[in-house]
Amino acid sequence: MELLKKRIIEDGCVLPGNVLKVDSFLNHQIDIDLVYKLGAEWKRLFSDEKITKIMTIEASGIGIACVAAMHFNVPVVFAKRSKSSNIGKDFYATPVVSFTHGNTYDVIVSKSFISPEDRILIIDDFLANGSALRALINIIEEAGATVVGAGVAIEKAFLHGGDKLRDLGYRVEALARIKSMSDDKIEFC
Amino acid sequence: MELLKKRIIEDGCVLPGNVLKVDSFLNHQIDIDLVYKLGAEWKRLFSDEKITKIMTIEASGIGIACVAAMHFNVPVVFAKRSKSSNIGKDFYATPVVSFTHGNTYDVIVSKSFISPEDRILIIDDFLANGSALRALINIIEEAGATVVGAGVAIEKAFLHGGDKLRDLGYRVEALARIKSMSDDKIEFC
Repeated sequence: MELLKKRIIEDGCVLPGNVLKVDSFLNHQIDIDLVYKLGAEWKRLFSDEKITKIMTIEASGIGIACVAAMHFNVPVVFAKRSKSSNIGKDFYATPVVSFTHGNTYDVIVSKSFISPEDRILIIDDFLANGSALRALINIIEEAGATVVGAGVAIEKAFLHGGDKLRDLGYRVEALARIKSMSDDKIEFC
Repeated sequence: MELLKKRIIEDGCVLPGNVLKVDSFLNHQIDIDLVYKLGAEWKRLFSDEKITKIMTIEASGIGIACVAAMHFNVPVVFAKRSKSSNIGKDFYATPVVSFTHGNTYDVIVSKSFISPEDRILIIDDFLANGSALRALINIIEEAGATVVGAGVAIEKAFLHGGDKLRDLGYRVEALARIKSMSDDKIEFC
C-alpha cells in the first residue's frame, strides 16, 4: 500500500536492533485517517471472507484494530497482558515473546468472547518474528474458532516470521513489507 | 446517555470492591458501533471547543479514543505504561494509581507529541478516583498545552473523583454517571 510505505519513508526512523520507530503515526500517536484507510485496504483484501470478529493484542494493536473494524461491522476483542500467573479457568492464556523488548509475557482472552462459530481476522501493527500472531492463533484455535487470516500494517519480511505463518497455511496480508532497513534506507519487497 | 446506561444494565456486572465489569462491550471485547455513538455524543457536547488532539491512557482507553476520534478528525496520543524507571529526557512521566488493581505505575508520553498550541480532549472508559485523568492533565499542563476537558464513558460518581476535577475547573463529561451500585442494582445520577 503506497500510502503507508510513503509515510514510513517520511516519518519512520530505524533504530539499532532492527527496530522501526513509527510512533508518530501508528503506535503512540495514531493518525486516525491513515489507519481508517489501512482498514479499508484490509476490507478489500478480505472481501471474499465472512468475518465475525477482529482480534488484536494489547496495547499497540488496539487502536488500529478498532478503527479498521469500522469497515467490518464486527466487535473487536483484544488479548490482555496478564497481570497474574493465576488466571483461573475463565481465560485462554498463551505466552508472547516481544521482539522490541526481548521479554516474554502472557496474554489472556476471556473464554466468553470466542465461540467455535467465530471466523476471526487478526489485526496488528507489526509482524516481526510472528510471536504475537502465533499467540492469537493459538488462542483462537484452542477455542475451536477459525482463523480467517491476519492483516498487519508493517511486516519485517527479512525476519521471515510472516513466511513461516504463510507456510503453515495462514493468510497474512501485510500492507508494507520491509525487505531491508538501515539507518539511511528502508527497502520494501 | 440512555443507550450506554441501558447497555450497562443489560450487560454490566458488579463485582466486589466497587468494580463494574463491562468487558463484554467496552474494555476487552469492544462494541465498535456503540463506541462510535459515544464518540458522536462527546463531539456534540464539545462542539463549542476547538480540539487539536485526543489523549488517552493504555490500554482500555485506546480503542474508545481512536473510534471517538473519527468524529473529531484529530490524532490520538495514548500514554504508555513505562517499562523502565529510566525513561530519559524525551518523555513526560507521571504516576497513576489503578482503581481496579490497587497498584501504582508510571505512564509516559513522548515530548514530540504535545506542543503548547495543542488543545486536548482526554477520553477514557472509566472515571473512578480520577487518578488516570489527573495523570494525563499533569502531562498536558507540563507540556504547556490546554486541557479542553475529559469525555469518559462511565463515571463512578459515588467515588467523587469526577467532582474533585470539576471543582478544580476541569470540564468532565461522563455519558453514564453511577450514583450507587450493588450486586443486583445499578442506580444512575
